[in-house]
Amino acid sequence: MNRYDIAIVGTGPAGVSAALTAKNRNKSILLIGRKDLSNKVQKSHKILNYPGLPDVTGEELVLAMREHLAQMGIEITEEQVTNIYAMGDYFAVQCAKEMHEATTVILATGVMQGKLLPGEEENLGRGVSYCATCDAALYKGKEATVLGYSAKEEDEAEFLAEVADKVYYVPTYKDEVKVSRDNIEIISGIPKEIRRADNKSVLVIDSQEIVSDGIFVLRDSVSPGQLVPGLETEGAHIKTERDMSTSIRGLFAAGDITGTPYQDAKAVGEGNVAALSAVAYLTELAKKL
Amino acid sequence: MNRYDIAIVGTGPAGVSAALTAKNRNKSILLIGRKDLSNKVQKSHKILNYPGLPDVTGEELVLAMREHLAQMGIEITEEQVTNIYAMGDYFAVQCAKEMHEATTVILATGVMQGKLLPGEEENLGRGVSYCATCDAALYKGKEATVLGYSAKEEDEAEFLAEVADKVYYVPTYKDEVKVSRDNIEIISGIPKEIRRADNKSVLVIDSQEIVSDGIFVLRDSVSPGQLVPGLETEGAHIKTERDMSTSIRGLFAAGDITGTPYQDAKAVGEGNVAALSAVAYLTELAKKL
Repeated sequence: MNRYDIAIVGTGPAGVSAALTAKNRNKSILLIGRKDLSNKVQKSHKILNYPGLPDVTGEELVLAMREHLAQMGIEITEEQVTNIYAMGDYFAVQCAKEMHEATTVILATGVMQGKLLPGEEENLGRGVSYCATCDAALYKGKEATVLGYSAKEEDEAEFLAEVADKVYYVPTYKDEVKVSRDNIEIISGIPKEIRRADNKSVLVIDSQEIVSDGIFVLRDSVSPGQLVPGLETEGAHIKTERDMSTSIRGLFAAGDITGTPYQDAKAVGEGNVAALSAVAYLTELAKKL
Repeated sequence: MNRYDIAIVGTGPAGVSAALTAKNRNKSILLIGRKDLSNKVQKSHKILNYPGLPDVTGEELVLAMREHLAQMGIEITEEQVTNIYAMGDYFAVQCAKEMHEATTVILATGVMQGKLLPGEEENLGRGVSYCATCDAALYKGKEATVLGYSAKEEDEAEFLAEVADKVYYVPTYKDEVKVSRDNIEIISGIPKEIRRADNKSVLVIDSQEIVSDGIFVLRDSVSPGQLVPGLETEGAHIKTERDMSTSIRGLFAAGDITGTPYQDAKAVGEGNVAALSAVAYLTELAKKL
C-alpha cells in the first residue's frame, strides 16, 4: 500500500492551509474531505476579517480556496473517515470504502456541532453507527433510524432505504427535507436520548419514541476521541501544544477542533503550523531510519 | 488623553489581522506601524501557501491587506514605539513623537533580524540609542554613528546629519546607499561589537573601529524585552500561551515575535486569536469596574 507522508482529514480552512503548506514542502499528501470544502464556511454570509480578502462571502472564500488547491495540483479524496489508529511509526486511516496509510496525520475535521446524546457513546457499535456506507448491508430487511444534522445526510437515508425495509429520517435542521423513496418516513422532533431495549434501538424525541434495529447519527463531524482511540481531549476539543502536536506522536490537529475562537484566520494559521510541525516530524523520523 | 481599547504595534500580517478582528468587534484601536505595512512581506517574491490568494507576490499581499484595512476604515499611525509600560489597568505606549494610552496591547512587531551586538544592551542609554527622532537634539555639534539595517534608515542618518557635525553611516544591507549630505560618511564592514571608552562610543567593525559620541542602532524592530520592561521572553521571542497572552496581563503577542514558523498564515491566525483574547480581557475588566 502506498504510504502517504501526511494524511490531512478535513477540508475547511485549517485542512486547506495544511495541504498547501505540506505540498509546498514537497510532501506526498492525502487530503480527505469534501469537494465543496466546508459546509460551515460555504454558509457564512460575510467574512469581514480574513486578511487580504475584504468583505468576502463564505461561497467566495470556498471558491478562492478551491482554486488555490487546484493551482497547486492538490486533489480532494471524498471519503468518510471512521477511525484513525496509531500503529507506531505510521497511522492507519480507516475510511468507509478503504484503508489508507500515512506517516503523519493532521486532524482538521472541525468541531462537532451539538453535544453527544445521552446513551449515544455507550451504544456505539451496539445499534448506534456513524457511517451508513459502512453498515448499510447489515440492515437488509430491517428498520433503521437516521438522525441527520445536515441536508446532505438525506442521500445517506436514501442509500439506506435501498437496503432496509424502512427508514425513519429525523432531521435536526430547518430546510425542507427532499427524499424520493416511499419507505422513508420523515419525523420531526428534538432528539433527546438513545436507548437499547429488547435488542432494538430507541431514539427518544420530545414527542415520541422511535423503535428500530439501529440508529445512524450523521453529523458533519464526529468527536475526536471517537475518531482516534487514545487521543487526549478537552471536552469537544483536542488538546494541542503551540506547535499543534497532540498527545499522540505524529498526530497533529488544527482549526475549530483545537478550540475557540472558531475563526477562519485562526484555522488557516493552525493548519500552516501543523503542516510544518508534521514536516519537521517526518525529517526527524527519517534521520532515525 | 484618549485611551484606546487596543493598541496594536506592528503592521505585518499579524498586526493587520488583529486590527481587522478588533475593529470588527467595535473596539477603538490604535494601529502603529508603516503605511507600506511590512518590509519583509513586501520583499517576498512569491507566497504559495497563503490560502485564498494563490501564487501571490509580497507586493500583492501587502496591497490586498492595505485595501482591506481601508475598507474597514482602519488608519495606520506611523510612529516609532520606543517603550511600552504596564501601568496596572492600562498601558503607556511611548512613541518617538508622543505618548499613547491603551487598555490592552498586542505586540506584532516581527522578529528582530540578527542578534544583539556584544556590548549593545549594556550601553543602551549610555551612547547607544534606538531612536534618532528621540535623541538627535543631543548631538548638536557632535559626531554620531548610525548602524542601518535597512535603506529607510538613510533618512534617519540625513535627519541626524542636520544636527550633528558628522555622521558615520554603516549599512548592513547590500543596496546602494543614497544620502545627500556631505557630512555623512558611508563606511562598509560587518559590525562586531560596541564599546564605551573615554566617554566616547566605539563601533568595532571587521576592518576598523569608529569612534563617535554615540551609536544609533536602527533595526526594523527591537527585541521585545527592551520594548516592554519585565516581559518574559525565550531568546528573541515572547513567551505566549495558546490564547496569545504573555506574562503581562492585558498584553498579547502575535506573529513572528512569538516564534517560528515565520509564515504569513501563522501570523494572521495568531493576530486573530490575540485580538479576540484582548476583547475577552476588555469584557472581563469592564465587569470589575
